[in-house]
Amino acid sequence: MAGSTFGRLLSVTTFGESHGPAIGVIVDGVPAGMALAAEDIQRELNRRRPGQSAITTPRSEKDRVEILSGVFEGLTMGTPISLLIRNEEKKSADYEPLKDVFRPGHADYTYQAKFGVRDWRGGGRSSGRETAARVAAGAVAKKLLALRGVSILGYSLEIAGIRAARVDPAEIERNPARAPDAEAAALMVTAIEEARAAGDSVGGIAEVVASGCPAGLGDPVFDKLEALLAHAIMSVGAVRGVEVGAGFAVSGMRGSAYNDVQYVEEGRMRTRTNNAGGIAGGISTGGDIVVRAAIRPPASISLPQTAVDASGSTTTIQIGGRHDPCIVPRAIPVLEAMVALVLADSLLVQEAYVRNGVRPVRP
Amino acid sequence: MAGSTFGRLLSVTTFGESHGPAIGVIVDGVPAGMALAAEDIQRELNRRRPGQSAITTPRSEKDRVEILSGVFEGLTMGTPISLLIRNEEKKSADYEPLKDVFRPGHADYTYQAKFGVRDWRGGGRSSGRETAARVAAGAVAKKLLALRGVSILGYSLEIAGIRAARVDPAEIERNPARAPDAEAAALMVTAIEEARAAGDSVGGIAEVVASGCPAGLGDPVFDKLEALLAHAIMSVGAVRGVEVGAGFAVSGMRGSAYNDVQYVEEGRMRTRTNNAGGIAGGISTGGDIVVRAAIRPPASISLPQTAVDASGSTTTIQIGGRHDPCIVPRAIPVLEAMVALVLADSLLVQEAYVRNGVRPVRP
Amino acid sequence: MAGSTFGRLLSVTTFGESHGPAIGVIVDGVPAGMALAAEDIQRELNRRRPGQSAITTPRSEKDRVEILSGVFEGLTMGTPISLLIRNEEKKSADYEPLKDVFRPGHADYTYQAKFGVRDWRGGGRSSGRETAARVAAGAVAKKLLALRGVSILGYSLEIAGIRAARVDPAEIERNPARAPDAEAAALMVTAIEEARAAGDSVGGIAEVVASGCPAGLGDPVFDKLEALLAHAIMSVGAVRGVEVGAGFAVSGMRGSAYNDVQYVEEGRMRTRTNNAGGIAGGISTGGDIVVRAAIRPPASISLPQTAVDASGSTTTIQIGGRHDPCIVPRAIPVLEAMVALVLADSLLVQEAYVRNGVRPVRP
Amino acid sequence: MAGSTFGRLLSVTTFGESHGPAIGVIVDGVPAGMALAAEDIQRELNRRRPGQSAITTPRSEKDRVEILSGVFEGLTMGTPISLLIRNEEKKSADYEPLKDVFRPGHADYTYQAKFGVRDWRGGGRSSGRETAARVAAGAVAKKLLALRGVSILGYSLEIAGIRAARVDPAEIERNPARAPDAEAAALMVTAIEEARAAGDSVGGIAEVVASGCPAGLGDPVFDKLEALLAHAIMSVGAVRGVEVGAGFAVSGMRGSAYNDVQYVEEGRMRTRTNNAGGIAGGISTGGDIVVRAAIRPPASISLPQTAVDASGSTTTIQIGGRHDPCIVPRAIPVLEAMVALVLADSLLVQEAYVRNGVRPVRP
Repeated sequence: MAGSTFGRLLSVTTFGESHGPAIGVIVDGVPAGMALAAEDIQRELNRRRPGQSAITTPRSEKDRVEILSGVFEGLTMGTPISLLIRNEEKKSADYEPLKDVFRPGHADYTYQAKFGVRDWRGGGRSSGRETAARVAAGAVAKKLLALRGVSILGYSLEIAGIRAARVDPAEIERNPARAPDAEAAALMVTAIEEARAAGDSVGGIAEVVASGCPAGLGDPVFDKLEALLAHAIMSVGAVRGVEVGAGFAVSGMRGSAYNDVQYVEEGRMRTRTNNAGGIAGGISTGGDIVVRAAIRPPASISLPQTAVDASGSTTTIQIGGRHDPCIVPRAIPVLEAMVALVLADSLLVQEAYVRNGVRPVRP
Repeated sequence: MAGSTFGRLLSVTTFGESHGPAIGVIVDGVPAGMALAAEDIQRELNRRRPGQSAITTPRSEKDRVEILSGVFEGLTMGTPISLLIRNEEKKSADYEPLKDVFRPGHADYTYQAKFGVRDWRGGGRSSGRETAARVAAGAVAKKLLALRGVSILGYSLEIAGIRAARVDPAEIERNPARAPDAEAAALMVTAIEEARAAGDSVGGIAEVVASGCPAGLGDPVFDKLEALLAHAIMSVGAVRGVEVGAGFAVSGMRGSAYNDVQYVEEGRMRTRTNNAGGIAGGISTGGDIVVRAAIRPPASISLPQTAVDASGSTTTIQIGGRHDPCIVPRAIPVLEAMVALVLADSLLVQEAYVRNGVRPVRP
Repeated sequence: MAGSTFGRLLSVTTFGESHGPAIGVIVDGVPAGMALAAEDIQRELNRRRPGQSAITTPRSEKDRVEILSGVFEGLTMGTPISLLIRNEEKKSADYEPLKDVFRPGHADYTYQAKFGVRDWRGGGRSSGRETAARVAAGAVAKKLLALRGVSILGYSLEIAGIRAARVDPAEIERNPARAPDAEAAALMVTAIEEARAAGDSVGGIAEVVASGCPAGLGDPVFDKLEALLAHAIMSVGAVRGVEVGAGFAVSGMRGSAYNDVQYVEEGRMRTRTNNAGGIAGGISTGGDIVVRAAIRPPASISLPQTAVDASGSTTTIQIGGRHDPCIVPRAIPVLEAMVALVLADSLLVQEAYVRNGVRPVRP
Repeated sequence: MAGSTFGRLLSVTTFGESHGPAIGVIVDGVPAGMALAAEDIQRELNRRRPGQSAITTPRSEKDRVEILSGVFEGLTMGTPISLLIRNEEKKSADYEPLKDVFRPGHADYTYQAKFGVRDWRGGGRSSGRETAARVAAGAVAKKLLALRGVSILGYSLEIAGIRAARVDPAEIERNPARAPDAEAAALMVTAIEEARAAGDSVGGIAEVVASGCPAGLGDPVFDKLEALLAHAIMSVGAVRGVEVGAGFAVSGMRGSAYNDVQYVEEGRMRTRTNNAGGIAGGISTGGDIVVRAAIRPPASISLPQTAVDASGSTTTIQIGGRHDPCIVPRAIPVLEAMVALVLADSLLVQEAYVRNGVRPVRP
């Protein structure tokens, strides 16, 4: 209720401040009997970890995960899986000069207004570090989905206004921008480096595609699949917009162009276009589910900025430290995790009803 | 869990198919002692009602609301408020010719795939009619918010690609497009009429602004205020995208431009710009909360369309009946209702903690 | 959150005050494709209805149920089922003389303390009338359970200290006490009539047995099956105690007597005794689930009573009207309904995991 | 949803198997600004810890708690508080001989039936060890309650059929039975020792009293305060029954004796008796809240027992190891914790509505 828990049958509860002893997550509701090892989770955490490339923060957090419960003899037990990541290489002293200042673009003021107290060391609970716990949980969800033939692929569609012209899955992990288009990637990297050199930062758009989902996931009305996805994705710190399918482009479309024409191929319903993003009436169609997230430029920049301090006075600050000039590439595994959590949860919910009701009829 | 309930302390549960006996909503968690009359709710329902203008469906649903519980001697009792709207003027026979066809752009196929059975009369639960229950509930939330100085204003920002150039609140309810700019409104109306004449439909973008919210609403991590809003708004049938503040434009912004500069005026924290949309770190800043929704063109068009039927065969259909060529104007009260529900709920949650913890400190 | 909703995958939300226009319930999460008619629900409502026998209140509420949604062409649609019962034959004027008095044993004072306002007409939301909505919802759950071979049987185990010596299912609905033992029933009826003649009321103990449940229902830790049952049963107005299996008698038992000895018969695990009440570690064993509820004597008695009024003065009141001298027989269908709701919900939850995890292994 | 989370505004999520690396709990929703130290939690854990006296298990678990998040500079932050307890001195090999046997009275068979896999080392998730996490969370809730003048007192009311004749709070922690009556305590200890000498175990009844609660906690219908308490208490592994106030004794009472007579003293509403247990209509009266739990004799006894193994064969087993002959004294802090969690949560919920609605009116 205080916002640290998400999900229905598959629920995750996270904890931790960026400069506290540890962060972590409890994943409850994972079916018993699934093979799971720390390595499955570590692999995903490594994709989010700082210091991966020249265009991310040089901070070197190891983010080693420990499984504290829920797994025995290599198998999930049906009991809550607790994943712990100790915080290392914390440089809290870096933040001390700004402890009484509300940094622009950060949550310093709103946390102070809400709670009356605030962990000023690196953003505390509002830090992007919190997303490591999501990635850890998402790794479990991805494993569950993979067993059912569902795969999740994320990439940087646009950075600093530069948009990928094609989607080549093989290219994504080859370039530090995590863009699916080598040429666009090169331009993106240049734009990021220019921004950093200028003491500034840039934003972008990430796209996540889920393939292999059965038709029938999601529920009418408030738990439409796109509503659950929007909730999940918009809960990631830097996101300011979410789209499915044609997204904001629908404003300029007519119904005759928007409506995806259906056809049957090899006994399966398909569509010629995918303006609906794989979801109709809140329920998955069986086609690719396509979502996009608008990711703002990071708030921590080294340019001088005007700020207000706790006494209400205006001051000029300069934020030191080692920050990401663009968060989009490192946000990809986080967004994939959120999509995976929603889909795995929806799969479990759907199975409950399918088994207890009539079988789906497909043309 | 099956998606008909939304909210935490202020929760709403809706029911009803478009051609069943009735639709309605239970609003639970409204504090006791608030004046509430059927007229408060009817006023909002009338704004959503079909047949209001030349550019909406000529269907004439009266949508009379009846309060079944929770109000006694003109005051809320703290018990669930049940609101009932009987379905009248249903023309189910209109839908009979298409009962075995999956209409393009509709939820016919996905409902069939999920449930194995389907109410083919006018979309059943997936019908836009379901949103009348949301508007009724939202009217209660608006009343609660108004008592605390919070007001909600929605309008058509863009229709058929035509964007309002200014926001004049007084203009909104004067034109059938519900646009805040008279000139743009005229163009929008023309575009809608052209689409209808062509047997087609158009989409658009709605904007909702909440003013007067205190700082401190929303919770860290999964229940960030924008995440709750995104969930609420994306759960409205026709929505394909949600933005807060600068939204998707962040992709082309640098951090130095994005970060809203704060200053103190008359003892209150304010910002020079509002790229954050009134929310930082998931928590309201005290400034205007600004959200936008991309609304697709209605699926029901009278142009001939290719469709698949229950036997898997391809056929050509033509949808008769009285449909909206553009749903944006009628969606405005629905989106306002969803924003009101999220804010009223968040206010209640926040009060629980404020009273039990330290008082917020404001510069 | 304000307490009108119960259940996880199968959730019910009730509304209504005893003297308002109507009471009702929304049952969400019922799988699609199940046959359901108003008659299925009416049958159960008739068992709870006042005026059934000489030992219940002579009030004659018809309690006709109307299905407002969720059922089409005789089948559930997977959408919320809304059930409405209009309040008829309300005699609100009867309550006017006591509108400023806090009746002993009633919730008058606590509702006033909590809400600051109060519906003084017949108890409002705290009235036993609210349980009709539970019975209506329970009828749906019973239908779902019956399809899976689960049956629920409730009866009066003890009234006014008189305990049934045997359980003869055929006897239960034959006597107005709903006791499973004809001789005890006769004594119970006499005791009830004596209490009524004395202007007083009596309490008792109800027992509910669920047969045919598979092993595996319920979850470890907070959602143990007995915890969900205790929540459900203790939420019925007049209940002051809940037991499973050996219940409070465990205080005098040794472990060697308590531990149910298991054995295998026709490939199924069974136990020689059932001290656990069909639940071990919070999870159903596959044996009969046995719960008991202690039901207090009704608060409304015609004997003169000392009471405090809204001004804080002490006064003497005499409650007129037509009240039950013993609520146990009419509580039986209510308790059956609560057990049915918990079991149906737990069945749905369990199916989600069975299908997604390893298959249960049984010796 | 899989049962590891409990609570509404104040929610706890536990994890951990008895012989895994650790157990722990996340407490979310604690208001910011409350002083909290590890010592506050350790004190309560020490009351539950094994090896406290001659009549408990001689296992020596240190149960050192570590606060991983949510507290900064000695104050709660409003963010989730994560509490970790490493499992030490695990003797998993002790359990190896019985790994393929379903121990009588344990959850071995039901976990196997539900999950298909099972942690055979000391009960895994079904172990009483899980309650340490509850006690840790309860310590936080107790602190919150103490700030509002609410105190919780638990004790052994009955052990092995021997009932305390008086409640002397000062006596409780003086005797190893945690009984509030020195004479009864001596008899209880003797009975426990006799049972242990016979290779057996005994049950009992615990009583918990909460004093200082304001009137108004709890909600109508499904979240009646006694329903939340029953859920919480019945979710503790060994509990087979829950009572409030007069409890099962109501069966032999008449309404004239049951109804608590109210009176006003020093401006506060009071009652001459407390048959309602401090709760009327599901809402606290402002008087003492009194609940009792029936606690079964521990399942692990050293007497030979008949059991079924995984192949379905019957065998005779003898359980070695160091087990409690009576769990009631060590269950007291666990039950206190559960009552504290429910009351703290209900206080938060109530404040949300009080602040947003009319003020309570008290005579």
